[in-house]
Amino acid sequence: MHCATGASNTCDNTTSPSPVRFGFLLPRAFDVLDVFGPVEILQALSRQTHLELVLLGRTLEPVTTEPVSNAMNRFNSSFFPTVVPTHTYADNPPIDVLVIPGGAAARSPDLGPEIEYIRKVFPRLQYLITVCTGAGIAAQAGVLDGHRATTNKSAWKTITAMGPNVKWVSPARWVEDGKVWTSSGVTAGMDLTFEFIKQKYDNGTAIAEFAAGNMEHVMITDWRDDLGFGARFNVTPQN
Amino acid sequence: MHCATGASNTCDNTTSPSPVRFGFLLPRAFDVLDVFGPVEILQALSRQTHLELVLLGRTLEPVTTEPVSNAMNRFNSSFFPTVVPTHTYADNPPIDVLVIPGGAAARSPDLGPEIEYIRKVFPRLQYLITVCTGAGIAAQAGVLDGHRATTNKSAWKTITAMGPNVKWVSPARWVEDGKVWTSSGVTAGMDLTFEFIKQKYDNGTAIAEFAAGNMEHVMITDWRDDLGFGARFNVTPQN
Repeated sequence: MHCATGASNTCDNTTSPSPVRFGFLLPRAFDVLDVFGPVEILQALSRQTHLELVLLGRTLEPVTTEPVSNAMNRFNSSFFPTVVPTHTYADNPPIDVLVIPGGAAARSPDLGPEIEYIRKVFPRLQYLITVCTGAGIAAQAGVLDGHRATTNKSAWKTITAMGPNVKWVSPARWVEDGKVWTSSGVTAGMDLTFEFIKQKYDNGTAIAEFAAGNMEHVMITDWRDDLGFGARFNVTPQN
Repeated sequence: MHCATGASNTCDNTTSPSPVRFGFLLPRAFDVLDVFGPVEILQALSRQTHLELVLLGRTLEPVTTEPVSNAMNRFNSSFFPTVVPTHTYADNPPIDVLVIPGGAAARSPDLGPEIEYIRKVFPRLQYLITVCTGAGIAAQAGVLDGHRATTNKSAWKTITAMGPNVKWVSPARWVEDGKVWTSSGVTAGMDLTFEFIKQKYDNGTAIAEFAAGNMEHVMITDWRDDLGFGARFNVTPQN
């Protein structure tokens, strides 16, 4: 059991209070579903307990999902929604959890402000969550060093090379290692989020099941069940 | 086979060109994943063919996902991202497909401008897509009348009551009926979108499978496979 704030008589006091403030990092060209899959589920949780969403950008201007490189948009599509941050990295608002999405962002040569922010905030986080290739951004910041972690199986070689001191794990839908939770590609972030709610909130299992039902989503409940993507993308089993 | 624009020698000319312009309706309190699930997948498609995203609001101000009613936010959470429209309903930009999301929006008493816009644009659409309880918004506009359609099984009675002249279908992950495609709850919109790509674009099956692999998503490929949610929510099988 965890400790929900104000519910100390029903919990194991060796663990920390349920997180309230979720910060999402919004680097340019972040993957939209890496962000909005978890946001959807946490929004359902926010109807059962008080939660606060913090969307973090370099400035308060809308952040675009458009890649920096034209080579990643060969057909000149205009299909890049923008999202409005609530805070800047410099604001440095209080957060309990930082969620780092992936996407083309993970391969950007221009992640300096994001990496600086991650390094600064990591020591005071209750939890760090990465989704998909967001693990590559966290790895570049060094905060996954020594931790067990996973990432998108279709991008395995590229992303794991960003963290030579990380204990990369496959097969895995997600991996928990203390305060560090990492998920596989995109939709795996949703299963990670459901598991996080189950473990960290009062009535978490009931809340997760209720939310998943409303979303008509069948939760993957075994972290080792990677739905075959490790094998499909020729990732050697490890850890 | 469909007809990709400019590829008339390889297609069945009884069908129409592949859609280029996708408009997403953004009523207040729309469900974020109803929008960003399909956007994620279409963004992958937009790297293989030219696509344009149109985000439609009443004004160009960011649209909030916050419910109008405080009763829907009992714990005073602040967990409501905003999304920036690219166009207003009054702009009436050219679109080939209109996607209508659900969420608390579907139960809003203040949908006048959305309903007016849907009625106006429907006759010139190639396709109408609804996700989750977005079918309720389309039903209120009358554009589902006479069509086979489905919606979220956990909200079945409320939403189907909005369209007494709609031929509601269950079990169904999604339903295709001519130009009208409707999906079940939230994540079903992603499976609908994959199927839409398979049917409507050159190399659609390969593009869908590639995108699903990158997302580590296992596509539901049988429209009748509702993953048991109809039975779970006591929906009587029909049509």
